[in-house]
Amino acid sequence: MYKIYRLEALQKFAEAIFKAIGCSATDAQTAASSLLSADLRGVDSHGIARLVGYVRLQEAGRVNVQAEPKMIHETPSTGVLDGDAGLGLVVAPYAMQKAIEKAKAVGSGWISVQNSNHFGIAGHHAMMALPHDMIGIAMTNASALVAPALAKERMLGTNPIAVAIPAGKETPFVADFATTTTANGKLEILQRKNLPAPTGWVQTKEGASSTDAHALKNGGSLLPLGGDLEHGSHKGYMLGSIADIFSGVLSGANFGPWVPPFPAYLPMPENMPGKGIGHFFGAMRIDAFRTAESFKKDMDQWIRRFRSTIPIDPQHPVLIPGDPEREMEKERLQHGIPIMASVEEELRALGLRLGVEWGGE
Amino acid sequence: MYKIYRLEALQKFAEAIFKAIGCSATDAQTAASSLLSADLRGVDSHGIARLVGYVRLQEAGRVNVQAEPKMIHETPSTGVLDGDAGLGLVVAPYAMQKAIEKAKAVGSGWISVQNSNHFGIAGHHAMMALPHDMIGIAMTNASALVAPALAKERMLGTNPIAVAIPAGKETPFVADFATTTTANGKLEILQRKNLPAPTGWVQTKEGASSTDAHALKNGGSLLPLGGDLEHGSHKGYMLGSIADIFSGVLSGANFGPWVPPFPAYLPMPENMPGKGIGHFFGAMRIDAFRTAESFKKDMDQWIRRFRSTIPIDPQHPVLIPGDPEREMEKERLQHGIPIMASVEEELRALGLRLGVEWGGE
Repeated sequence: MYKIYRLEALQKFAEAIFKAIGCSATDAQTAASSLLSADLRGVDSHGIARLVGYVRLQEAGRVNVQAEPKMIHETPSTGVLDGDAGLGLVVAPYAMQKAIEKAKAVGSGWISVQNSNHFGIAGHHAMMALPHDMIGIAMTNASALVAPALAKERMLGTNPIAVAIPAGKETPFVADFATTTTANGKLEILQRKNLPAPTGWVQTKEGASSTDAHALKNGGSLLPLGGDLEHGSHKGYMLGSIADIFSGVLSGANFGPWVPPFPAYLPMPENMPGKGIGHFFGAMRIDAFRTAESFKKDMDQWIRRFRSTIPIDPQHPVLIPGDPEREMEKERLQHGIPIMASVEEELRALGLRLGVEWGGE
Repeated sequence: MYKIYRLEALQKFAEAIFKAIGCSATDAQTAASSLLSADLRGVDSHGIARLVGYVRLQEAGRVNVQAEPKMIHETPSTGVLDGDAGLGLVVAPYAMQKAIEKAKAVGSGWISVQNSNHFGIAGHHAMMALPHDMIGIAMTNASALVAPALAKERMLGTNPIAVAIPAGKETPFVADFATTTTANGKLEILQRKNLPAPTGWVQTKEGASSTDAHALKNGGSLLPLGGDLEHGSHKGYMLGSIADIFSGVLSGANFGPWVPPFPAYLPMPENMPGKGIGHFFGAMRIDAFRTAESFKKDMDQWIRRFRSTIPIDPQHPVLIPGDPEREMEKERLQHGIPIMASVEEELRALGLRLGVEWGGE
């Protein structure tokens, strides 16, 4: 139950919605591009389906659509950006641009961001570094859904980490992953289909291993990458914690269980220690280490060698991080983006309410 | 079957061995300290038990004990260090010191290292940043034992990543983990005891899931963190790849299946694209982001809040990364370090051969 829409139509709609809630034309375009990059790359859970959620945050007074992010502390290679409670979809590219500028000047740039909101997909921001022959890094914290190893309490978000690395003739290496066994989006698919979840994805409220895809909604938790201690869930807990500290503590944003939730109907945590959500961005100029030419030659060799790794099943060759998303983007740029009927209905209603025509059919 | 030795006795012995094979007094001390830090922290597989292995590398002409590492390319915040084929145990602290100096000057420092050898435990090097009120990062590549997701060929090392973060009144956060489900050391314990391994640790030569702890020795592979695709092994593959590229490709060292093996009896890979083993180090000055005082206050709150997370079993409270190793270090500094009889026998023979007295009983 879905219809196919062209990227341009969805971009136009999302831009108009962002303008309707008060964004400048430039910010609306940036926000819509950040958002649609998720749909293009096949991360439908973080794309236009969330547009209504962003609008609700604005209506609840939790997002400042006329934010003017500014650097509040900096050195030649680092800094903290105050997102002025703006849309993460806009604040994140701004911060990444700052990191890139610092890398141009002194080799690398590292920006921790406070007072922001959800920024869409991490990979989109990390990839901004690629055209500059830089390695890009992006991470964020998010509201708590994940129990640390040994715990039955939600303390961390799915806290994704993205690393984008340029190549020469080959396509770039783009890793973008939640620090949990699985993404919440995959769990939601199982919920809708009433299918069980594999063990190691979720646990119950009491901390018991569970295959109930509804366990999270019933007060349980997502599990850190590794799933259980025997399989290294303490490592997933460490990764999620690092993203939380780099994003939240280093910037003066909220952290751990105090990170504000995305759904506007959920109450804000009490006694919040910082400002908004935190992100962390990095850019490293390749030629701040060795010539871009020699690096790219080796990177091409890395990619080709890993692509030719002997697969278990010849039907399923070994992939390079970023391959599936790139394939998806190619396909969707060419043939359009499928929008589920339920999402379309919600977006139409949103458009009607804000005086923006849903279009592109 | 073990005896207990004081740290001082083991340090003295290891230093004398390093001097006996040609290291300067300073380098011998640095190498022995790097090595013993593993025993102190309970990572026995990477400690003095490996001393014989380092000596054999020197005897095989694969390590230059009189190496003079030098920076071959740099910017204010980055650089590549040529380890001059030296002991990683010495090259790594040298590189980390360079990263710290750069962080002092411009906020952060990032050093990629080529032409090095195994550096012991990553955490030891990352922790060098802590007394400077800096965040420390260390990673390395290593010879291939790990199959990427979907593969039956060994392409990556266990490629550990360490991140050390200072706190105020609380003890620091120190994450140090291999990017695999389990460490090779844990597998070796099961091999010795002839016990099965949990699923998700290893696979056979044919790429089949296996509980045979000997599967690795029989041509199989270790598995990336996640274990299988359903549990996110593509994420462990990404993490191991990032450590490989930052350490190997960014520096001009070897990478992927071309990383030289630690055991000197194993042949070097053919057609190696780079020089030696690669590492990557980072240091970020806390006050390059916000005042160290405010950061530490929040970091203390982070640590206390996570320590008080509701545990599944009240007997097993939630840990902060670095807790188990710190406990072990305290215990071993006070009561000594247990050395297995088989390891002691090997070390005695090594001492005898190089004219160094095994002592401390």
